[in-house]
Amino acid sequence: MVSSVLSGMKIAVLGGDDRELILVGELVRMGATVVVCGFPRERVGHGAFALNDLEEACKGAEVVILPLPGTSPDGVIRAVYSEQELKLTERAISMLAPNALFIIGSAREYLKNWVAKRGLKLLEVAEIDEIAILNSIPTAEGAIQIAMEETDFTIHGSKSCVIGFGRVGITMARTLKALGSDVTVVARNHGQLARAYEMGCKKAEYSELQEIMNYTNIAFNTVPEMILDRTILKYANPQVLIIDLATQPGGTDFEAANNFGLKAILAPGLPGKVAPASAGKILADVIPGLIIKELVQLDKNSLYA
Amino acid sequence: MVSSVLSGMKIAVLGGDDRELILVGELVRMGATVVVCGFPRERVGHGAFALNDLEEACKGAEVVILPLPGTSPDGVIRAVYSEQELKLTERAISMLAPNALFIIGSAREYLKNWVAKRGLKLLEVAEIDEIAILNSIPTAEGAIQIAMEETDFTIHGSKSCVIGFGRVGITMARTLKALGSDVTVVARNHGQLARAYEMGCKKAEYSELQEIMNYTNIAFNTVPEMILDRTILKYANPQVLIIDLATQPGGTDFEAANNFGLKAILAPGLPGKVAPASAGKILADVIPGLIIKELVQLDKNSLYA
Amino acid sequence: MVSSVLSGMKIAVLGGDDRELILVGELVRMGATVVVCGFPRERVGHGAFALNDLEEACKGAEVVILPLPGTSPDGVIRAVYSEQELKLTERAISMLAPNALFIIGSAREYLKNWVAKRGLKLLEVAEIDEIAILNSIPTAEGAIQIAMEETDFTIHGSKSCVIGFGRVGITMARTLKALGSDVTVVARNHGQLARAYEMGCKKAEYSELQEIMNYTNIAFNTVPEMILDRTILKYANPQVLIIDLATQPGGTDFEAANNFGLKAILAPGLPGKVAPASAGKILADVIPGLIIKELVQLDKNSLYA
Amino acid sequence: MVSSVLSGMKIAVLGGDDRELILVGELVRMGATVVVCGFPRERVGHGAFALNDLEEACKGAEVVILPLPGTSPDGVIRAVYSEQELKLTERAISMLAPNALFIIGSAREYLKNWVAKRGLKLLEVAEIDEIAILNSIPTAEGAIQIAMEETDFTIHGSKSCVIGFGRVGITMARTLKALGSDVTVVARNHGQLARAYEMGCKKAEYSELQEIMNYTNIAFNTVPEMILDRTILKYANPQVLIIDLATQPGGTDFEAANNFGLKAILAPGLPGKVAPASAGKILADVIPGLIIKELVQLDKNSLYA
Repeated sequence: MVSSVLSGMKIAVLGGDDRELILVGELVRMGATVVVCGFPRERVGHGAFALNDLEEACKGAEVVILPLPGTSPDGVIRAVYSEQELKLTERAISMLAPNALFIIGSAREYLKNWVAKRGLKLLEVAEIDEIAILNSIPTAEGAIQIAMEETDFTIHGSKSCVIGFGRVGITMARTLKALGSDVTVVARNHGQLARAYEMGCKKAEYSELQEIMNYTNIAFNTVPEMILDRTILKYANPQVLIIDLATQPGGTDFEAANNFGLKAILAPGLPGKVAPASAGKILADVIPGLIIKELVQLDKNSLYA
Repeated sequence: MVSSVLSGMKIAVLGGDDRELILVGELVRMGATVVVCGFPRERVGHGAFALNDLEEACKGAEVVILPLPGTSPDGVIRAVYSEQELKLTERAISMLAPNALFIIGSAREYLKNWVAKRGLKLLEVAEIDEIAILNSIPTAEGAIQIAMEETDFTIHGSKSCVIGFGRVGITMARTLKALGSDVTVVARNHGQLARAYEMGCKKAEYSELQEIMNYTNIAFNTVPEMILDRTILKYANPQVLIIDLATQPGGTDFEAANNFGLKAILAPGLPGKVAPASAGKILADVIPGLIIKELVQLDKNSLYA
Repeated sequence: MVSSVLSGMKIAVLGGDDRELILVGELVRMGATVVVCGFPRERVGHGAFALNDLEEACKGAEVVILPLPGTSPDGVIRAVYSEQELKLTERAISMLAPNALFIIGSAREYLKNWVAKRGLKLLEVAEIDEIAILNSIPTAEGAIQIAMEETDFTIHGSKSCVIGFGRVGITMARTLKALGSDVTVVARNHGQLARAYEMGCKKAEYSELQEIMNYTNIAFNTVPEMILDRTILKYANPQVLIIDLATQPGGTDFEAANNFGLKAILAPGLPGKVAPASAGKILADVIPGLIIKELVQLDKNSLYA
Repeated sequence: MVSSVLSGMKIAVLGGDDRELILVGELVRMGATVVVCGFPRERVGHGAFALNDLEEACKGAEVVILPLPGTSPDGVIRAVYSEQELKLTERAISMLAPNALFIIGSAREYLKNWVAKRGLKLLEVAEIDEIAILNSIPTAEGAIQIAMEETDFTIHGSKSCVIGFGRVGITMARTLKALGSDVTVVARNHGQLARAYEMGCKKAEYSELQEIMNYTNIAFNTVPEMILDRTILKYANPQVLIIDLATQPGGTDFEAANNFGLKAILAPGLPGKVAPASAGKILADVIPGLIIKELVQLDKNSLYA
């Protein structure tokens, strides 16, 4: 029976937003003892414990889950429903169970050190294909929503370009194409461009980007490098809308864009903003499987410890 | 040469919004003498004349163009950029050229009488397939935008239903399907349902609507009759979002929806709101052709007069 | 319960192919007494009666069903499994029950007269939207199959054109587009062209056909008039493949095509050839409903007779 | 100017089919001196030299191109237009220019040894993403053509499954989905399954394959391992059509399929069979770029030699 799979396991969920609340519900349903920190009591569903003290929450936890956006450089955890600042301390980590599993979107250096020092298992989930690809769906829809709100023309019949053809770029291109846009995919890798062609998009290399931006109506960047720089923007269609989906600080020279009078929007973290229910369901679908997989591996390893 | 096609023809454009401004630009480009009423001087592009006095504007006009939404019952013309009320009078109509062509979205009874009395040609364009189908594109995108803004889940993976399968319903269904929604089309006509099936949608009859609303996440109504009545709404999924695209007052019992705590939005006139540039281009693409066609016909008829 | 809906009704199925056998199975399942003529005993499923004598089969039948392609001018019914010629006679019709319902794809003049003379109800199903649209699916797939077999290039990346945008044309265009072809729809009606545009196709009028054929790789005609005539074909791309889906004799000047060395294929009746199981299921899904509807109407009418 | 890019370079093309002839035309157009072996004089376009003696053809060649399917274990080259057997010998290879570039689909052990011994650069192109992905388009269309020919139902409305979600699997799934099939993708990798879901397909793991085959109408295997084995086939839908696209010997137990009365077709090398013009264009588009890239690299390396 599914609902006892995590039976008896103590899991601490520290901070986050509506997505984590959906995940917490699933973990409870699967039998875990879940302690939540950074949410008011009334938001936390039946069966989980809400604590104010983060160190208390960590005590003895075999799994600790932080939100996808992770922490600030000095350890502050994103916790939209918390009135007080939620800060991760080395002391809190020292209170986790030995061999505990530490799950976070991506970990900063200081955190990697803390975790390594105690021999904890670190799982950075933002880069796990399954999560990143599933999250590309709300990301693309959020980008479409912004495009619809910020333009006075339809996506259908527009000329769009998608820069980068990885997990988000593929979904973005498919979605634009489906809505009737004339999509050009800009990428370095010829295999990726072949796939873009197969999907019905036009393909271009970076050397053509300046020319493409000259007539593009909406540009979506997914590459976390300075791509839409001053040189490119200088010759861009004055009416272009740039939506930058790459992780902060994005791949656009926003100052240059501003100087040239171009509308450019940095839009990170869309899944939690535009579709928290869907994005929460992704976590609830994937995280428990990852926990089971990791803990089974830990068990196996312990045989030879 | 295209640009002299309407050469010498006097056209009065009375009221409207950004769409009419795009149309005016095209009419000027095609050589017409265009007089505009209900817009400040600075908004009207080069080559057209802005007048404050509606009767003055009508004087001698061979074609008069009113906006798609038409007039109120007492003749007030929708004119979003006009500070003063713009009102159509019988006297204004009497000042038009004999045999003038009167273009409007749809005409109320009083207007039909005035026009008939003077033997003017009336062209109600809202019901012209070409305009209605082209306008269904911004309508569907506007509806998608609302759906994205008002829900916390993605269209992809949602269960949606489209009620009515005419000009808007078909586009709505195709768009939802393209975005990855599981779409059920509800219609009376079996030929329409066969088409919905061919497009990859599920099909249902009205007798099944109550059951369908029970698990639908987003419902789009396009039928201008009371369809989503109290009986249907009573058993609807409490989380459903209803977007009603039918002309006012729509096909939803909004009071009942409110009583049952359901979110229901009446969203008429989306093209001019969400994508005025595209919607204006539709007018600019279609209206001149209609004028030419009508005037050529008038000319032909006059041979035998 | 569905299976007694046609209980006690005598239905004669005269000629046809695998499709009719599927229909017969459904009629039997719904409780009808089905007599079949033009099929060997062993092909006819359990529960139906196979007769050799057509007049015998008609005796007392309340419903008689002929195949979609109907009869030759002198009454010969298409019956692919019959060794002997199956011929419809006026005498056979005289043996039907009074008020019998006569179902056929489309009826020739002589047949209309016979049926009218006896006051029978005639139902020509080829023109019923539901059947025609559902059949457009196997028609389009059959046309795609021919195109794949007869060309040395892929549909993806090809330039195709679809002439006519009715029930078959719409499906043909959607299918080609889905496979990645660059599709131009040629039609007279501006509303149809607006729909083609909404579906992501290019649109053109007949006056542009000559130019379009000049660079088209595959042309699909659906219009039962002489469209692809000598004038058009003279300037066609020498490598073009023409597939004519219009009812015989099609809309192509095949002799001219041959003279110009163009490959042109007349492909009528595809559903029964390429996908008889699907096409039979369409009949089984739709015909019983038509029978019920007609007979209920007849019953109602008889109340007031 | 493009057409002198390969100017003065001697290229030998050994065997192949219509695809190589298209490639030869492009190489000639780009200024190369092309010697062709395994084709009758009259098939080879203007500007290339046709030789009968393979060793003669190799003499001094800087680039040698063999067909995608490569050679048999004893060196016989596939050459569909050659009346005599075309056999690659070590002596022929010894006649190539020093540092020559050897291009082939994939190389057998003996060939790798020969090439390594002489320090030639070996380029196995079958595994190059760009070629493999572009070739997946004719592969998928060829598979669809077979499916259409071998079934009596339409793809639209069918239940299909695609096993493996690599370069061919993705294209296969998209194509089936576009045609209106209900597609289940079976794969091991959760990232791939997330992508399949994003594309609108159902997803399944290998452990579910037996159950899926139980109701699948058409199964497409792309995995070159024994996947559809006796255990799976035993419970397969008796009407299923299996199309195996994996390189020989495929991933199906054809003997077991035969014993169970299942129709299973091994269909390797579809691009050259169903769409040689498109497949030839792929080679003509990609191979020259690879040659330029490799030779420029060789030149660079030689600076430091």
